[in-house]
Amino acid sequence: MSTGHIIPGWRDGPAAPPSAGPPPTEPSHAERARTVVAAQSRGALSTLGPTGSPFGSVVTYGLDGAGRPSFFVSTLAEHTHNLDADPRASLLVVEDTAAGADPLASGRVTLMGTVAEVADPDDRAAARAGYLAANPNAFYVDYGDFRCLRLEVTGVRYVGGFGRMSWVDPAAYANARADPLAPVAAAILGHMNADHGAALVTLVAHFGGRPEATAASMAAVDRYGFEVVAGFAGDRQEAVRVGFRTPQTTADGVRKELIGMLAEARAAAG
Amino acid sequence: MSTGHIIPGWRDGPAAPPSAGPPPTEPSHAERARTVVAAQSRGALSTLGPTGSPFGSVVTYGLDGAGRPSFFVSTLAEHTHNLDADPRASLLVVEDTAAGADPLASGRVTLMGTVAEVADPDDRAAARAGYLAANPNAFYVDYGDFRCLRLEVTGVRYVGGFGRMSWVDPAAYANARADPLAPVAAAILGHMNADHGAALVTLVAHFGGRPEATAASMAAVDRYGFEVVAGFAGDRQEAVRVGFRTPQTTADGVRKELIGMLAEARAAAG
Repeated sequence: MSTGHIIPGWRDGPAAPPSAGPPPTEPSHAERARTVVAAQSRGALSTLGPTGSPFGSVVTYGLDGAGRPSFFVSTLAEHTHNLDADPRASLLVVEDTAAGADPLASGRVTLMGTVAEVADPDDRAAARAGYLAANPNAFYVDYGDFRCLRLEVTGVRYVGGFGRMSWVDPAAYANARADPLAPVAAAILGHMNADHGAALVTLVAHFGGRPEATAASMAAVDRYGFEVVAGFAGDRQEAVRVGFRTPQTTADGVRKELIGMLAEARAAAG
Repeated sequence: MSTGHIIPGWRDGPAAPPSAGPPPTEPSHAERARTVVAAQSRGALSTLGPTGSPFGSVVTYGLDGAGRPSFFVSTLAEHTHNLDADPRASLLVVEDTAAGADPLASGRVTLMGTVAEVADPDDRAAARAGYLAANPNAFYVDYGDFRCLRLEVTGVRYVGGFGRMSWVDPAAYANARADPLAPVAAAILGHMNADHGAALVTLVAHFGGRPEATAASMAAVDRYGFEVVAGFAGDRQEAVRVGFRTPQTTADGVRKELIGMLAEARAAAG
């Protein structure tokens, strides 16, 4: 699970708080992988060339309910020729990276499997709908020289950054839900960090078990809780995870949960 | 060379001006490919898994003088295991995409070949220098469990967007120079479009052979010239290429060349 080069705060779950209690719930790697794939619509497809050499190309995709990517590919494209000769393929999807961030710190997922034509009309309609949801400007989906293909996922490799990686059970990936907060996470972070730094310190103190924190900024939020970069005396920083009391699925739910948690923390502090 | 779905202005060179004369010089696909690869430091590596299935993963790379990418990879990484068993690989590199742009309109390059350990000390020092130039924060290059690998390029696929694609001769790629203006192109475009729209209309009229243009904004610039989105009566837009009189390698050279061309255009207009 570890590369042996652990960056402080980049690991599988921040340290458990020194106070008692179970560590806060985190998304599973299946959920994290599904979230990465659902947030993008473009990836790198690896196929096999005429001599069996690997060939990478750009594809756009959409997902169905089981997280299987569908593609509308030109009959003239290299990867289409390759897949006709050998249907084995993998799709690499990479999380967006903040400008200036380490390019190896972003999450990525490799979906491995076999690509097949989607022939059944109902199946094709579903794949087409998923593809258009992810690629609303895909004017070419009904062109006669474009084909609808789908990857049957038989292997899932997840890398969440330095020291967070695993092989994910394909069934767990198929059953996982993408994080419902992913589309609003950036807005929640922006709001909390602009206006509620003191509240974050209070939450880290009470729910994160780190009363000595002097500063806090929210670095990530998901359905089960959030990650904070907490500051301590001597300019020391550390990642602290704080779990929600109950999972949340909307920005408004997060707002109410944080208000409730803050009231609880203040009451406990007397 | 064409997908059969030509978007106006997305093709191999805008239409030749209706006036006489040869079409303006453009970068070759070898030069375009080298420029795309030189501008990035992260790509998708396709390798072969244990059963010969293609596997995509993220790598960071640097280039040597012949455009060969070198990698510093962890001995624990999946792609390292894959390459030890079969050295065939390809590296896919994708141009940055402007926010909101069509994800299939950006240029991309697939370098195909065989990956080998860089064992010779001088060779390794050169690969290390190229890698660090592209990845200045790569703290791990001298770690004992990281290995220096290099891709010997035997095939190059270039896709420049809709309808601009080809197989590039590997020797032409090795001998090509990345566009010297690539690092300053965004600044040149920003400056020209903010302050010199009227000058661009004059240049399009005289050097682009389109005196009926009523508006112009610079969409791309390279050592040989620039591309303009020209506006015409009736809200019609079209891509027009304007060649420099002599190739340029610096922002200051472009500035002086444009001033000289503008003087020539104005003198010709009387």
